[in-house]
This record gives sequence, structure tokens and C-alpha cells, in this order.
Amino acid sequence: MFLNNTWYVAAWSNEVGRTLLERTICDEPVALYRKEDGTAVAIGNRCPHRFAPLHLGKLLGDIVQCPYHGLQFDETGGCVFNPNGDGKIPKKARVPSYQLVEKHDLIWLWMGEDKFADESKVPDFSCLADKDFRSVGGVFEVEANYSLLIDNLIDLTHAQFLHENTVGNDAIAGGKFELVENGTTVYSNLWCPDGPLPNAWQPAFGGNYQKNVDQWLYMRWDAPGHMLLDVGVTPLGRPRGEGAWVYGTDILTPKDDKTTYYFWGISQNYAVDDAAQDDAWRQAIYTAFECEDKPLLEAQSKMMRGKSFEDLEPVLLSSDVGPVRCRRVLQKLIETQGQPDPALLSLAELRNAATDQGRIEPVV
Amino acid sequence: MFLNNTWYVAAWSNEVGRTLLERTICDEPVALYRKEDGTAVAIGNRCPHRFAPLHLGKLLGDIVQCPYHGLQFDETGGCVFNPNGDGKIPKKARVPSYQLVEKHDLIWLWMGEDKFADESKVPDFSCLADKDFRSVGGVFEVEANYSLLIDNLIDLTHAQFLHENTVGNDAIAGGKFELVENGTTVYSNLWCPDGPLPNAWQPAFGGNYQKNVDQWLYMRWDAPGHMLLDVGVTPLGRPRGEGAWVYGTDILTPKDDKTTYYFWGISQNYAVDDAAQDDAWRQAIYTAFECEDKPLLEAQSKMMRGKSFEDLEPVLLSSDVGPVRCRRVLQKLIETQGQPDPALLSLAELRNAATDQGRIEPVV
Amino acid sequence: MFLNNTWYVAAWSNEVGRTLLERTICDEPVALYRKEDGTAVAIGNRCPHRFAPLHLGKLLGDIVQCPYHGLQFDETGGCVFNPNGDGKIPKKARVPSYQLVEKHDLIWLWMGEDKFADESKVPDFSCLADKDFRSVGGVFEVEANYSLLIDNLIDLTHAQFLHENTVGNDAIAGGKFELVENGTTVYSNLWCPDGPLPNAWQPAFGGNYQKNVDQWLYMRWDAPGHMLLDVGVTPLGRPRGEGAWVYGTDILTPKDDKTTYYFWGISQNYAVDDAAQDDAWRQAIYTAFECEDKPLLEAQSKMMRGKSFEDLEPVLLSSDVGPVRCRRVLQKLIETQGQPDPALLSLAELRNAATDQGRIEPVV
Repeated sequence: MFLNNTWYVAAWSNEVGRTLLERTICDEPVALYRKEDGTAVAIGNRCPHRFAPLHLGKLLGDIVQCPYHGLQFDETGGCVFNPNGDGKIPKKARVPSYQLVEKHDLIWLWMGEDKFADESKVPDFSCLADKDFRSVGGVFEVEANYSLLIDNLIDLTHAQFLHENTVGNDAIAGGKFELVENGTTVYSNLWCPDGPLPNAWQPAFGGNYQKNVDQWLYMRWDAPGHMLLDVGVTPLGRPRGEGAWVYGTDILTPKDDKTTYYFWGISQNYAVDDAAQDDAWRQAIYTAFECEDKPLLEAQSKMMRGKSFEDLEPVLLSSDVGPVRCRRVLQKLIETQGQPDPALLSLAELRNAATDQGRIEPVV
Repeated sequence: MFLNNTWYVAAWSNEVGRTLLERTICDEPVALYRKEDGTAVAIGNRCPHRFAPLHLGKLLGDIVQCPYHGLQFDETGGCVFNPNGDGKIPKKARVPSYQLVEKHDLIWLWMGEDKFADESKVPDFSCLADKDFRSVGGVFEVEANYSLLIDNLIDLTHAQFLHENTVGNDAIAGGKFELVENGTTVYSNLWCPDGPLPNAWQPAFGGNYQKNVDQWLYMRWDAPGHMLLDVGVTPLGRPRGEGAWVYGTDILTPKDDKTTYYFWGISQNYAVDDAAQDDAWRQAIYTAFECEDKPLLEAQSKMMRGKSFEDLEPVLLSSDVGPVRCRRVLQKLIETQGQPDPALLSLAELRNAATDQGRIEPVV
Repeated sequence: MFLNNTWYVAAWSNEVGRTLLERTICDEPVALYRKEDGTAVAIGNRCPHRFAPLHLGKLLGDIVQCPYHGLQFDETGGCVFNPNGDGKIPKKARVPSYQLVEKHDLIWLWMGEDKFADESKVPDFSCLADKDFRSVGGVFEVEANYSLLIDNLIDLTHAQFLHENTVGNDAIAGGKFELVENGTTVYSNLWCPDGPLPNAWQPAFGGNYQKNVDQWLYMRWDAPGHMLLDVGVTPLGRPRGEGAWVYGTDILTPKDDKTTYYFWGISQNYAVDDAAQDDAWRQAIYTAFECEDKPLLEAQSKMMRGKSFEDLEPVLLSSDVGPVRCRRVLQKLIETQGQPDPALLSLAELRNAATDQGRIEPVV
């Protein structure tokens, strides 16, 4: 069971163009493309006639032609041309169409009832399109349920162990932790003052910074799997504006209940004009995620052998307050098929609220 | 559920020799070989003792020896020698044997009750062994139920889209269509007059034929999946004897409910002595089937996710009259486990009946 | 269903060290390692917190640290350190620990109730650690239920067919067979007098021995899958001490119901100082097992399509008395979850008992 009445990221904006793109979102086959005027469109990918995948067909202007018998579908999902036999178009000859919002360089699809779709409920990832930041991103497929990735990201204490050679550091373990809920948004905040500079941040500090720093890792989660990390390091006792600062986009979209698309993005407030940063981040994400998180998440998924988390009765630690809270919010939403009620603070509001030595006060 | 009381093609004649050949027909493991006198034989491939596959064993004269403990079986499937212990042969020590007809360069097995086997019911594929034709053939394994391949072949309008660069052409879309039933045989006939010559036929017309032609595509289907295509092109308004003409053998044998053996053959009435034709056809079939049909059929099968065609409630078009008719005949035969009652017109009869501008009158 | 109250071999001694080794025994995930004092330890491999596999973590002294959030477990399976949050350790934070015996260069785990574990019930494989023998061994994974491997090994008549080019020979078919039961131990003995020397034994006889020999193949089976082969060849009519003589270790541990670890070992009483023997045996086992038995066992398993041996109603031969007897003993033990009651004769006792022209009298 997936949460239907919510937005899901199906692709990065730059993945969708004049070539048909196939995705599976919540077990539904979707074909994405842009119309000639540039508008992005998402329709069902399974032809209602013989179930051929439409993405193997052709884009004719704004119309998708099935690869098999040439039925043509428009952006509403309706069949608009049948080249065969008497040419009649049966009423049932249609595929789903999905309400689509293109925002912050991401393609968001509404997988629930049309009448509930509300563009204002798309969480704020404006950093990705903000010219004061340099952004780079990509997408991984992970053979694990998306809830395992939420657990992973909402509780960043794992960095100290799984990523000990990259972003992990002892200061994280001793950090001050705060969990805040606002509507269905969960904030999991770590404030780690007075510790050595983690290796991953050295480049932003000249490469050989030996003094202690203050570090913050603030994660915002919105249902079902939209996460934004506000992470940075500043010289000991100094305002965060004097430090290096990154927004991490971590958006988890269920392909099916065993597979997850992980859309990652990095937006940095320094070296904004340095194109070499992009490859450096791609390499860093490759090292941390592809080589460390992904193998662990997939091994974890295998260890669970198709059983649910609840059936396996996991031992809970006090540090699981973030994962537990997100799981509860999500489970309740799925049970009632309700809509998320995100806090919808702007990044600026969050940023300002957090300048006071990293104490986030998310409710303004 | 498969149709049992019918003939299935298990192999081309030239695939069966003095080496044991393994096939799975309707989910039953079969081992094929030739006796020293050249007679082809098919017996069950699973040793009744420890279930080792016999085809990994040896052929000793006309006898198959199990690779594991050396039990020997003859062409009747009976165990004739036990080299172990007291050497006694238990009554139950036998594998099935299959009634086998070798006809038209194909090996046909009867998968039902022996008493119903009737060699005269083998459909006519005499073109494959006719010296007035040059024939070439092969076999593919496709990860899709054989009914999807029947749909594909009985309704050739898909050629215009899936094979637009090879055999497809606009004349097919505007063709005159005729569905004829005779017993359990279904004829799906397309007569496509006055169109440009499809590329695939250019070699038979000198390579640069610019005038319009008449084209015919007549498909004969017999249950469960025995199809013969009579396809050709003739100069506009001329008798078909003045044109180029090919019989296409399209025989679909279920390996299991998810996999199909596709035995394809081509028999042409021109360039009968030109051995280079064979490789040209192999290449053409590779391009059209391996690169176009097969990926689509397998994608279609995946899109169906193990559900039946009926459960998915496909939208029907008027051009689906052929697929629908074949599915109904086949389904009724399977439900009653009856025997097909094929029309059994000879190819000559069909050919003569069809010379009148391509109007087939299959009932003489 | 597996037999729980018994010892299983999880690894060779030399596979377990200061790197965490993963095994799955009877469908249970196990991590093996040595403490700093060299003691081998086996604990559950699935962290109770988030189900990460512990073997991807670290060995810190005698403690295993989970790769994910750093929980630490000691050899009793108890969590001894939680680096996260308030640091409290929930009572349920533990993994199983397994009673372990290291004996005869093998690591034996008790997979049942602790109170029943009895080290004295570990069968005698002392040849592996006996300096009068030269021993070499390894482990294969086979995609077949372990019962198929027991069948294979307890009835060595298959050698004549499956291994006809290596160890097989006609003398085996004509051998004198004896089945002896003692407690839950089954002895399946073949005495094959007066036959040509099998090729595999030629090196031990100078390479070109043309006279006839006496051969013995005595297999001892203990539940669930602990087998020892006493096999040798001696000049016709001479005491076995004048011949060449090998113990074959064949221990079958179920990974799950479809997969088996096969621990093979060879202990020879000749050329004890010749290190080249090891590679020669590895090559011979590769040829006989990897190239002959394994493909057949896996094909056999596929042919059974997930059905049980009983459901398939195998035909039984008089030579199946060994397989049938072992299956019955094992099935009864599993049904009652009883403990094996092995004969526990020492190898010396067996050896002495067997010197009289190869007639084993296993009950002293």
C-alpha cells in the first residue's frame, strides 16, 4: 500500500524531454515527455489495447503513438487516433494521465484523486533552482523499500559508522538532538558544537583546517519521502554565515515495494561559479551512497526476506525517535489515505530561524 | 492449461540426430533423438528413479542411458536394463513416450491421449519440403505466452508500426480484410492493392522498382499455434504468378505458460538455387523478429505481470477480429480438451483459390 | 524443516579468523570469527535493531560492531554498547549465539536447544587432523537440497556412469554390497575384489599398473549429512596396508532447503610429505564434482521443480537401500526433532575391523 493523495518526484526536469522516459511510480507504469511547447506531461505507460509499453513508441508532436498497432494518445491519456480497421476509438481506449507540477527543477506527479491535487503542497526545494547556490543532482535505483531509506536519512548518527572515512565524525555522536513536528512535517536536528572539522568539509576550509568547528545537520522530512538536509560547518562560535553550507536534497520515490528511486541533490552556497564542484560532488555521493549506503540498504532488505519491519519486531533505541516518528506519520496517512499537511516553511524562514547557533525554531 | 489432444512441433528435423536434444513442451520435459535407422524418437526426459535429465546421458544404439545410475530406456519409454544391485526392473520404471510424426522437415509430437493421435491432422506445411521452393528456418525462445505471439501474427496490421522500416507500409493499413473460418482453422486475409513496393521486396524486383504493386498477406491459423503466411507482391493488376511469393512458417509451441518456442521458416518461389538467400532471410528475420517483435512481446508480457489477458480487460478494436477469433477457438478447445478440426486444404488448393486477385475462397 | 538438535559444520577452521565470515546454516544467518585468544565464535548475523548484516561491520577486539549504527555485540550475542542517544541497551538487543566446537579442523555449530548440546556426539573426522595422513579440503555451494547430495554419496554405484572417466569402473557394479545400521549411523559398504585398477589410483601404483586389484568403498553416514568415505585399493588378495588408502570427508550442510554447502576433504596415507598432492586433489575434485556431480545435482533439482521427493514417487531399485535408509532415519529425527544417536566408533576401530578382506564389522 502506498500513499496516494500526495506528490511524488518522478524525474529531474532535465531527464524529461522529447524522448519518452519510462518510470514506475508506486507500481504504476508511467511515460513522461515534453510537449513541443516545453510543458512536461505524464501519462500511463501501458497501452489499453495489448498492454505494450508506450515509451517504446514515438512522439508525434504532442501525441504518443503506441509501438505496436499505432494507437495515438494525447496528454489527457485519451486515444485520439486508431489507424486500424474501421478506425473507431472505443470509449475505454485511454491511459491514466497524471497531474504534474514542474518545480525546483523536479517533476512532481500526483498519484491520487485529481480533485485533491494542490500544487501549494509541494514541499520547498527552492535551493535547487536558487542562483545563490550551485546545484548538482542525480538518481539511483535501490533494491530496498523506501522506508529503509527514510530511516537511514532521518537518523544521521549512522554517518559515524557507515561513513566514518568521509562525512562521519565523533562530534555527531555527541551532538545535541531535537525532534520537532509541525503538521505532518518532521524535523530531526543535530547540533554538534566544538569538534574537529570532518574531512569532507576540508576543501571548503582551505584543505588543512586544524581548529575545532561547530557543525549542524538539520533534516526535514515530508511524507511520503521528501527530505531536505541543511548541513554546514562554521568556525567555533561563529555565525553560520561565516561557514560552509550545503542543502542536501534526498527524495525517495517508491518504484514498487521492493525498489526505490533515490533523487539526490546538493546545493552549496560557496564556489558557486566553479563547475568542477559538480564532479567532485558526484564522486563524493558515489563514494558515500553507492559504495556505503546502497550495499548496506540492499543487504538489510535481503536480511528482512520480504517480511515487514513490524513483523520482525526491531529493537528500538532512543536515537530511533526520528525514524519512528516518520514511520508513524506515514503509516497513519496510508491507513486513512489522507493528505500530508506539511509545515511549508520557506527555506529562508528555516535559515533565519536556525542562525541562532543552530537552534532551529521551525514554528515561526 | 494447455491443449493436449493435438500435435506440437518440438523441433526442426535437422535439430534431431544422434545427440540427445532437450525440449520442454507444454511444461513436459522431452528428450529427442534418432535411432540408428534414422527414425526420430521422443521420450520423457526425467528419469523415474532420481529425476536426472536423460539428455545428459548417452545414446547406446537405439537406447538412452541415464547419466546418473545407468538405467536404460528404449523408444517406448520402458526401462530395459538396470545395471545396479539385483538388476531387477520395477514395473514403474518408465518414462512417457510420445507419438511422433516427421513431416515437412518438422518433428511433430502428440501431447494427448494416444488413441486420439491422427497423423492426417498435421497441418500442411509442405512448402518447407517442396523443391519448387527454397526454404530456410530457425527457432527462437521468447519470454511470453504463445497466445501473445498468435495475436501478433494473426493481425499483421502491426507491421506498419513495429516494422515500419522493413516490411511495414501504408498499403497494409488500407488493405481489404477478410476473416474466414473453416472447422477450427482461421484465415485472416489482407489484400492490399495498388501501393508502393515495400522495401523488403525490392531485391525480388531488381532493387529499384518504382511502380505500384498489389500485395497480399494471407495468414492461416490452426490450433494451438500453427500458422502459415502466404505473402507476396505482384505488378499492379497482374496475376500473382508474375510476382514474388513467399510462404512464412510461424509455428508457436508453448515451452511453459511464460515461454514460447517460435519456429520460423521462409519458403520462396524465386531464386531457388541461390544459397545466399538463406543468410539474407536469417538477417531479415533477425532484424524484424529478434530486434522488433521479441523485445515488444517480452515487454508486453512483463507489463501484464502474470495476469491473464481477460483479467486485464483489453480494449478491443475492429482489427482484433482475428486475434479474438483464434483465442475463442483455442479457449473452447482447451476447456473441452477437444481435438482441433482443421480445414486441411492443401497449399495447392489454397494457392489456386487465391489467384483471383487474391480473394481466397478457402472452402473448395 | 531442518533437524535442529544436532551439530552442523559451518566452516573449515582455516576459513574463520579475524575477518567476519558470513554463512547461512539451516536458513539462519550466522557470523563467524575468532577472538583475540584464537577461540572461534558464531553469533547471529542479523542486527536486532535495523537488521543490517553484522559481517559487514568490524571486529573490535572480541566484539562485533554493527556497520550501520555501531551497536556492539559480544560472543554471547548480547549487545554490550550502544553509542547512540542515551546509550541505554534494550534487553531485547541481542542476537543468537551458537555453541561451537572446533574439532578435526572443522567448525561445528549446534543449531538446537543449548541444553542438549553434547560435544561427544560430534562424529569422528580425526583423519583430517591426523599427521599420519596428508589432508586437503574445500567447500562448494550447490543449488540442490542436501538430501540429493546424501543420495549421491551413500550410493556410490553412480560413479560407474557419472564418473566413468575418473573413479568409475566396472568392478564397482559387480561389488559386494552391505548395509549396516548402528544407532542412527548408516554404513554403506562396497567390496569390489579382483578388478582392474581405476585410473584415479594409477599414480599411487606407479602410473602403469596392469594387474588386478581389490577395491573397497565404505561410506559412513551420520545425520544430518556427515559422511566419511573409507576408500582404497590393494594388490589382489593382499592386506589393505599394502595398498593406497584415502579417507574422503563429505559433509553436507543445508544453507536453506534449496542450497547446500558441500565440505569436501581428502586424507591420504601415502605421499604424506608431498605438497603437490593438494593441487592434484583439488583438480581431481574439480573434475569429478564441479564438472560431473554438481551440474547433475542442480539439473536434478530443477527437474523436481520444488516438489518433494516423496510427492514425485520415485522408482526404487534394490541399490537404493542406502539412500532410503538415510532418508528414513533423517525424516524420523526431523519429525520428532530428536537427537542423532551416532555409533561413534573411532576410525581406528573401523580400520581394524575392516582389514579382514574389507569386511567391515562396525559394531565392535
